[in-house]
Amino acid sequence: MKMVHNGIEYADMQLIAEAYTFLRERLQLSVSEIADIFETWNQGELKSYLIEITADILKKKDEKTGLPLIDVILDKAGNKGTGKWTSIQAIDNGVPLSIITESVFARYESSLKEERVLAEEILAGPVGDQQVLDKDLWIEYIRQALYMGKVCAYAQGFSQYKSTSDLYDWNLPLEEIALIFRGGCIIRAEFLNVISEAYQTQANLKNLLIAPFFAEKIKDYQLGMRKVICEGINSGIAFPCLSTSLSYFDSYRKGNSNASLLQAQRDYFGAHTYERNDMEGIFHTDWN
Amino acid sequence: MKMVHNGIEYADMQLIAEAYTFLRERLQLSVSEIADIFETWNQGELKSYLIEITADILKKKDEKTGLPLIDVILDKAGNKGTGKWTSIQAIDNGVPLSIITESVFARYESSLKEERVLAEEILAGPVGDQQVLDKDLWIEYIRQALYMGKVCAYAQGFSQYKSTSDLYDWNLPLEEIALIFRGGCIIRAEFLNVISEAYQTQANLKNLLIAPFFAEKIKDYQLGMRKVICEGINSGIAFPCLSTSLSYFDSYRKGNSNASLLQAQRDYFGAHTYERNDMEGIFHTDWN
Repeated sequence: MKMVHNGIEYADMQLIAEAYTFLRERLQLSVSEIADIFETWNQGELKSYLIEITADILKKKDEKTGLPLIDVILDKAGNKGTGKWTSIQAIDNGVPLSIITESVFARYESSLKEERVLAEEILAGPVGDQQVLDKDLWIEYIRQALYMGKVCAYAQGFSQYKSTSDLYDWNLPLEEIALIFRGGCIIRAEFLNVISEAYQTQANLKNLLIAPFFAEKIKDYQLGMRKVICEGINSGIAFPCLSTSLSYFDSYRKGNSNASLLQAQRDYFGAHTYERNDMEGIFHTDWN
Repeated sequence: MKMVHNGIEYADMQLIAEAYTFLRERLQLSVSEIADIFETWNQGELKSYLIEITADILKKKDEKTGLPLIDVILDKAGNKGTGKWTSIQAIDNGVPLSIITESVFARYESSLKEERVLAEEILAGPVGDQQVLDKDLWIEYIRQALYMGKVCAYAQGFSQYKSTSDLYDWNLPLEEIALIFRGGCIIRAEFLNVISEAYQTQANLKNLLIAPFFAEKIKDYQLGMRKVICEGINSGIAFPCLSTSLSYFDSYRKGNSNASLLQAQRDYFGAHTYERNDMEGIFHTDWN
């Protein structure tokens, strides 16, 4: 329980860091303006311990230099292993846990500081002037993107609980787990009440994305999410967890996928066989 | 050696599947038109076994229905485990291997066919009409995106070789490995000559992205990559590997990252301490 909780926490933190980056680099806001934004967000549906402490962090000045303390902290993120164990468990058991895993990789990537400093000399991003964006509108878009990213990350974490519970016959009470997380732990948030309600209503819910409350929320918020990610892409800002959240959503909501091509390739080069969508059986084609 | 080779193969296949999806869903090309495109690509710098067999696959008709065979193959991709072992090894050893890992997750996601069919009833994508795109221009953009995605995926796979080699003192000859891959194996490609040359020139090359040939190529191709991903995002097409390739590139080329916020959060809630970028030492702040 605690392990996956921590995995979710990694994703939550990385999503917040990506929102921060967009506010700072693309909207060119100051650290103290961003602190105020997180404080405001903490009064709404994003209310949570991690949003609250982010506001506190951004308000803190370094006594030595007078700079925002965040600006003198070395950008190499450590980890104690729980995020990676969560990812490994999911990968080993066939659970798509891409968002948490991206947050683990983002930490690894950050630790390659010397390589990144070297690469910066060699690799440039997009060229050309950037359009000035409407500040209030885009602050709202990034808020929506953050919320939707969070929904996707929790949907994956709770799917991992569900599939592990099914695998080992644990009968995990997901609605209670969400409630427990409200008390004292690092991912405590308003948000968990809604998750708990979703499982109270449908104990066998396959994925939080299709719970009515979240499905409706995503319907409203996906436009902001798409705008923010494209703006990041065109400005050269990396959004490992936001963009992975969106590709998870866009994969999950498609009845038909491109995996038929993967199966054809596997059958072509390795005779791994395939199934058909119009009759039972296992098939192999002599492709050439 | 073979394990990571297969991991790279998973990413290669998924990138091809994403290019195929864009051509089919966004440019509305027929399967046989797409076969011709892959055939053309196979005469240029993308020349490789996987591109070649993709063209063959797309030309194959189903004898029973007369449809393109690809359209009757069930879109649940299986796997024999080598992709997941590659990801697990990387995660366990602190190597950012996000693209290969996304390709593993994409297979897992595909296998949730019944869930996806259900989700399609509930979750909708972006609304609104789509602009008609200039076919030739966008075929070239997606070719560039595919090439750049491939560079990023191989850069990660070869970084995994390098860091594992350093960890266990194996002294792996990366320039020879690339050459071996040209002969008979599934990822055989023209492309591997360039990789081999990069390591011949610089035996201690940290990452293929900064090899002069690839750095120059990416400089030219990143615009196409960014355009294709944004167009996918705005059309609701999932690009797990293409978008992860770009976020890897955009993370890797930044000397300063947002991980200082992660370190601040970790120090705030867990007293995990942090380093500074202006002096030596380990620091802790009393944040509130």
